[in-house]
Amino acid sequence: MSALPAIPLPPAPPDPLDSAADLARQLHATAIERDRQGGHAAAERELIRASGLLALSIPVQHGGLGAAWDVTLRAVRTLARADSALAHVFGFHHLQLAGIALYGDAAQQRELLRRSATEHLFWGNALNPLDKRTSAVASADGFVLNGVKSFASGALGSDWLTISAWHAPTASALIGVLPTNSAGIAVQGDWDAFGQKQTDSGTVTFDNVHLPAHLVLQAPGVAPTAQATLRSQVAQLIMTNLYLGIAEGAFAAARDYLAGQARPWFASGVAAATDDPFVQHRFGELWTLLRPAEVLADDAGRALDRLFARGALVTAQERGELAVAGATAKVLAHRAAIEIGSQLFELTGARSTSAQYGFDRYWRNARVHTLHDPVDYKYRDLGRHALTGTLPEPTAYS
Amino acid sequence: MSALPAIPLPPAPPDPLDSAADLARQLHATAIERDRQGGHAAAERELIRASGLLALSIPVQHGGLGAAWDVTLRAVRTLARADSALAHVFGFHHLQLAGIALYGDAAQQRELLRRSATEHLFWGNALNPLDKRTSAVASADGFVLNGVKSFASGALGSDWLTISAWHAPTASALIGVLPTNSAGIAVQGDWDAFGQKQTDSGTVTFDNVHLPAHLVLQAPGVAPTAQATLRSQVAQLIMTNLYLGIAEGAFAAARDYLAGQARPWFASGVAAATDDPFVQHRFGELWTLLRPAEVLADDAGRALDRLFARGALVTAQERGELAVAGATAKVLAHRAAIEIGSQLFELTGARSTSAQYGFDRYWRNARVHTLHDPVDYKYRDLGRHALTGTLPEPTAYS
Amino acid sequence: MSALPAIPLPPAPPDPLDSAADLARQLHATAIERDRQGGHAAAERELIRASGLLALSIPVQHGGLGAAWDVTLRAVRTLARADSALAHVFGFHHLQLAGIALYGDAAQQRELLRRSATEHLFWGNALNPLDKRTSAVASADGFVLNGVKSFASGALGSDWLTISAWHAPTASALIGVLPTNSAGIAVQGDWDAFGQKQTDSGTVTFDNVHLPAHLVLQAPGVAPTAQATLRSQVAQLIMTNLYLGIAEGAFAAARDYLAGQARPWFASGVAAATDDPFVQHRFGELWTLLRPAEVLADDAGRALDRLFARGALVTAQERGELAVAGATAKVLAHRAAIEIGSQLFELTGARSTSAQYGFDRYWRNARVHTLHDPVDYKYRDLGRHALTGTLPEPTAYS
Amino acid sequence: MSALPAIPLPPAPPDPLDSAADLARQLHATAIERDRQGGHAAAERELIRASGLLALSIPVQHGGLGAAWDVTLRAVRTLARADSALAHVFGFHHLQLAGIALYGDAAQQRELLRRSATEHLFWGNALNPLDKRTSAVASADGFVLNGVKSFASGALGSDWLTISAWHAPTASALIGVLPTNSAGIAVQGDWDAFGQKQTDSGTVTFDNVHLPAHLVLQAPGVAPTAQATLRSQVAQLIMTNLYLGIAEGAFAAARDYLAGQARPWFASGVAAATDDPFVQHRFGELWTLLRPAEVLADDAGRALDRLFARGALVTAQERGELAVAGATAKVLAHRAAIEIGSQLFELTGARSTSAQYGFDRYWRNARVHTLHDPVDYKYRDLGRHALTGTLPEPTAYS
Repeated sequence: MSALPAIPLPPAPPDPLDSAADLARQLHATAIERDRQGGHAAAERELIRASGLLALSIPVQHGGLGAAWDVTLRAVRTLARADSALAHVFGFHHLQLAGIALYGDAAQQRELLRRSATEHLFWGNALNPLDKRTSAVASADGFVLNGVKSFASGALGSDWLTISAWHAPTASALIGVLPTNSAGIAVQGDWDAFGQKQTDSGTVTFDNVHLPAHLVLQAPGVAPTAQATLRSQVAQLIMTNLYLGIAEGAFAAARDYLAGQARPWFASGVAAATDDPFVQHRFGELWTLLRPAEVLADDAGRALDRLFARGALVTAQERGELAVAGATAKVLAHRAAIEIGSQLFELTGARSTSAQYGFDRYWRNARVHTLHDPVDYKYRDLGRHALTGTLPEPTAYS
Repeated sequence: MSALPAIPLPPAPPDPLDSAADLARQLHATAIERDRQGGHAAAERELIRASGLLALSIPVQHGGLGAAWDVTLRAVRTLARADSALAHVFGFHHLQLAGIALYGDAAQQRELLRRSATEHLFWGNALNPLDKRTSAVASADGFVLNGVKSFASGALGSDWLTISAWHAPTASALIGVLPTNSAGIAVQGDWDAFGQKQTDSGTVTFDNVHLPAHLVLQAPGVAPTAQATLRSQVAQLIMTNLYLGIAEGAFAAARDYLAGQARPWFASGVAAATDDPFVQHRFGELWTLLRPAEVLADDAGRALDRLFARGALVTAQERGELAVAGATAKVLAHRAAIEIGSQLFELTGARSTSAQYGFDRYWRNARVHTLHDPVDYKYRDLGRHALTGTLPEPTAYS
Repeated sequence: MSALPAIPLPPAPPDPLDSAADLARQLHATAIERDRQGGHAAAERELIRASGLLALSIPVQHGGLGAAWDVTLRAVRTLARADSALAHVFGFHHLQLAGIALYGDAAQQRELLRRSATEHLFWGNALNPLDKRTSAVASADGFVLNGVKSFASGALGSDWLTISAWHAPTASALIGVLPTNSAGIAVQGDWDAFGQKQTDSGTVTFDNVHLPAHLVLQAPGVAPTAQATLRSQVAQLIMTNLYLGIAEGAFAAARDYLAGQARPWFASGVAAATDDPFVQHRFGELWTLLRPAEVLADDAGRALDRLFARGALVTAQERGELAVAGATAKVLAHRAAIEIGSQLFELTGARSTSAQYGFDRYWRNARVHTLHDPVDYKYRDLGRHALTGTLPEPTAYS
Repeated sequence: MSALPAIPLPPAPPDPLDSAADLARQLHATAIERDRQGGHAAAERELIRASGLLALSIPVQHGGLGAAWDVTLRAVRTLARADSALAHVFGFHHLQLAGIALYGDAAQQRELLRRSATEHLFWGNALNPLDKRTSAVASADGFVLNGVKSFASGALGSDWLTISAWHAPTASALIGVLPTNSAGIAVQGDWDAFGQKQTDSGTVTFDNVHLPAHLVLQAPGVAPTAQATLRSQVAQLIMTNLYLGIAEGAFAAARDYLAGQARPWFASGVAAATDDPFVQHRFGELWTLLRPAEVLADDAGRALDRLFARGALVTAQERGELAVAGATAKVLAHRAAIEIGSQLFELTGARSTSAQYGFDRYWRNARVHTLHDPVDYKYRDLGRHALTGTLPEPTAYS
């Protein structure tokens, strides 16, 4: 219609879920072998860093991609389909960023999030408010930390850490952040579980470590706000999406094996394993475990975004209702991952247990990770809420 | 800011789900007694008619309330919490209206839907394309019908019927509509199942019944369009919401009984039944059956609306994907209704089996209604689709 | 080979399980109709009396048939296949006889068991040591009873009753026996549960009833021996066999319906419902619920006989191990009855819900009866024992 | 009473189940480490040989211990609690002996069983009548074998092998036995499944191997007798007891960990993990999976002994009923092993996933071994039998 020359538009930024899918493909190529070896996946952590996705959840005004939590959680899930250990490292990196946004003041957010975005920092976790083995003693400018922290996911190989420490005078925990290479911090790679092997969940020791006041996110003796306690809901939803990614990975692996390699059972009378009525039926049962977990996880992710948008106005009731939605999704994802990871073999049969396929890693990874907090207490929380309206207590686990 | 007198606005029309809740309360008052008696609920059908909700799904341009299917399905669910038999009568009334919208031409839609709205007509079902016992023979102006049709839900007490009949020359079924009091039509109240007692699902006999050409919605020998086959998806989602309403009713009944009347087990050591950890845990398990079924049913309802909006452009692929979403929701609702209807008693205990509470009707109603088509073939359809992409065949059941 | 005339042998006494099977056939003929009506089954109680099986568990030296408990329990199960309400009345009659054997002294056993055998007495239950609503006050020759007892199985229509009453001075219950027509005893037929309708489990009221000293089986303030506490194990195994009989009845009903009346699902592609792979598979699942319950119930029945044979030498450990075996069998039987009673319809389909078949009574009967004590506390008892060796507490329920 | 000197009695032979328990303790000491390594367990095979239990099932008249199958199967189970891979090697050794007893003629039995007993021979399996890749061609004195056989359990390291080979002229398989070091036989250790790692289930290749006529147990073209087809029932019951041993091992490991090392969940309010009501309840559920499987497996083992005692008189009906009993037990054992092996972690928690405990090997071993034949076809066989009386077809798998 017009003779005007086309003005070239700047290229659209890549969809972060496309980037996550690309990254997942790279991780998948070596996932079976790395699961066998365990240890620290230094090269793969650099792949993650190179993807740009470490800045995914950082707001645009601080130099990040500004993705909603809904998107960040889906990115975790996408990676977990291929490699749930590195997806955990990735997810817990974003958990630490969430902690800064929820606990930190404006200056801390500005400083730490901007540095994270521009320097492509990788964050690790050394926070567990229930663990009193690390002590914090007030000093001239901040605190001195001593002690030990176990199961510090993503600590090994991180640039910065979120830490918690027990402050005896107030009988409470403080929360702070520190460069991992701070004087007195040492990280050991002593994680030896039979699954989620490359989560770098080692032990962190603190030997007269100086935590300056401006890196304290939550001072001791101060009750966290409802907003701040959203952090454990971020953690729960990261885990939910990890379990879901495992379940989706196992489901896809079974489907592809059945379509490509499985032989029909000699007594089935059908020409292809995918035509066996028992295979179809059981796969349908697994679908009814998987699909609802996906839908409810996505719903809970969007609810998390809504509460983030409410900022300091978040109420305990809203926070509790999110916890109920998250717990529902987490239980479903837990069951989906464990059951699909185990039952897929009823469909794929004896030959699929060869180490070359690595199909057992779905169950092993799900089995290890779903033990973060007992599922039976999730059922209790849900039943109690449905019976009496009691909200889950805001703890590190609910 | 202004001195102008306020102009009174016209009163907002009542939210149809509020109307449905009001109607549910009225039905609830007599539901236990009517479940015991069975038979035809003439007075309660008039309550439904008086609510105005018979016009719920009729487009505004034809004089109806113009509700989305999402809303109509929730209304079915709301009624089913209180009385799943009359909710079935109500839901199948709207199924017949859907049939007119999907199979009828513009004139038929205009004429039949407008009459339905203005005359508050109650529709019943005498359609089953698999049943060849009713024959259609071409006549001068239409067809002559002879034969019998069983399990005709809502037929007894209806004003109009959708009917199907077997046309031997084309080896196919026609679909038409007729006033229930047409010459030669007789409806017997011979439904005697142990649940869903007042669904008026009797037997319809046709004795030289004249079906004029202008009341034929689907001529024999013509393959239905993808759009037309949405009718069985409407039926499936009505059933899904019926099962869900039963599940929700049972869940609420258990909760209220536990909070108000149950005694803690003597060995529990707790003061209230709702504090018993086993009661909380099992109720949490039931919650994880109920909640996903609700969410997926609502999602499927909205998907149905999207396909209705596409009209004749609906493709077989889109229709099939809706069928997968609907089947997923239906299986979840089926399980929720059966399990909650049965397991609630593990929580409420021996005294709750007294006939005064009528708590067994949840299981009986769910048990009867969930047999419309075998759940094992739903699992097969879902598994087959997940394995190979095969879509459920468009039949009266899928 | 020989010319000697045959000397006629006395006819062998009928196998009591054959008699039970005969009786079951008679009860079956009217079971559906009587389930619908509820109320008191006077004529059928006379059929039981006429069978001679009221004396089944009475030792030969007291004029009974001297059957082992293993046999008596199987007779209960046989009747329960046809009519679990009257099987309950029958089983609880034998429970009262067990109570005399376990709690009574030699003279009481001789007198009461002999009279029971020779007069074909029917016993009912009015014992619940946890219920303090009936009081016992010492009198010149025994006690005076006042108060009320609910859920008194088999009381209506009985000749004699076992009763318990609360003795305030010792804060304990006494146990005694009385003719049902004793002055001051009244039995009301107010049982109105939705299943097990004809168990005559009404309310017994005591209005200044005289309990003479020689009819006191267990004096107040005396701790029962391990032997005496076997009574609740007899009760638990009677219930176990009732649930099993219901499960067996439902299983057989489904099998017969599938073989004789069911139509294959139109999408199955098979000629007979019993050829449908999903029907076969699910029926196999139900079999794996039923068969183990049968085997473990029989094992527990034989273990009960061994402890009866040990008499007063029974130890708390032995009694506890029997309780573990019995609880295991009871949980399996509970699950089998509820699941088969509900899932059979997934196999038999919509037409099988017609009231003419009465197939819902299996679930209703199982549902009501399995609530005697909460299954979740059985799981707890079993888990606690497996974890720590703790034996179930000897109560009226474990 | 008497002054006669006591005549010293010969020492009683050790109870073979005590010997098995001793052997299990020895295997347990290194089981976690050997599971990690995989490969061939030469030293442990010598421990088995030294125990004398290779002769366990060999009749006394042939120099063996003459144990009933019931005992041999329990010995398999005892070993499997500690090391299910070597228990498999041990069990399949006895399966080969069973094959000689069932297929061989009197001379073969005498010769082969006596040599096995006196020379402490270790037998391996290279029989799979469905696998046609190894051919048998008649020669002057017997047959010449060529081809390959996969998944030959216990072949590596064995002294003798049972082999099958396809005989084209009769379109049937022959069965024979050969020393493993026969000219032309090679065994590769190429088994690489993620569980049951040390079962030596490699690939056997036959390169112009001479099978002399006197080592042919079953000639080609001859239908096996009902007695001969008991061999697959021996195999099925060995697997059943393997699964059970895994389940028992996992159950005991969970119990011991909970009693000794687990910490109660912080929200539980109890002092010991074994006091947590949810731990007790779930452990009770696992008990109701384990105990019935044990009882039904033992029953099936005794039924196998009864059919062995019937020798050539065994009928197809008797064989089929044993197959039903065995399949029931196998399904229960399968479920117990998979569920306990996976759910134990819900009880023992995150710390129990450390590689030091090796608790994942229960699930991995059960998962690999339970795929021998699809459990869904067992359900089908059981359901079909319960519905119509059809007996499982006598195949290598049923």
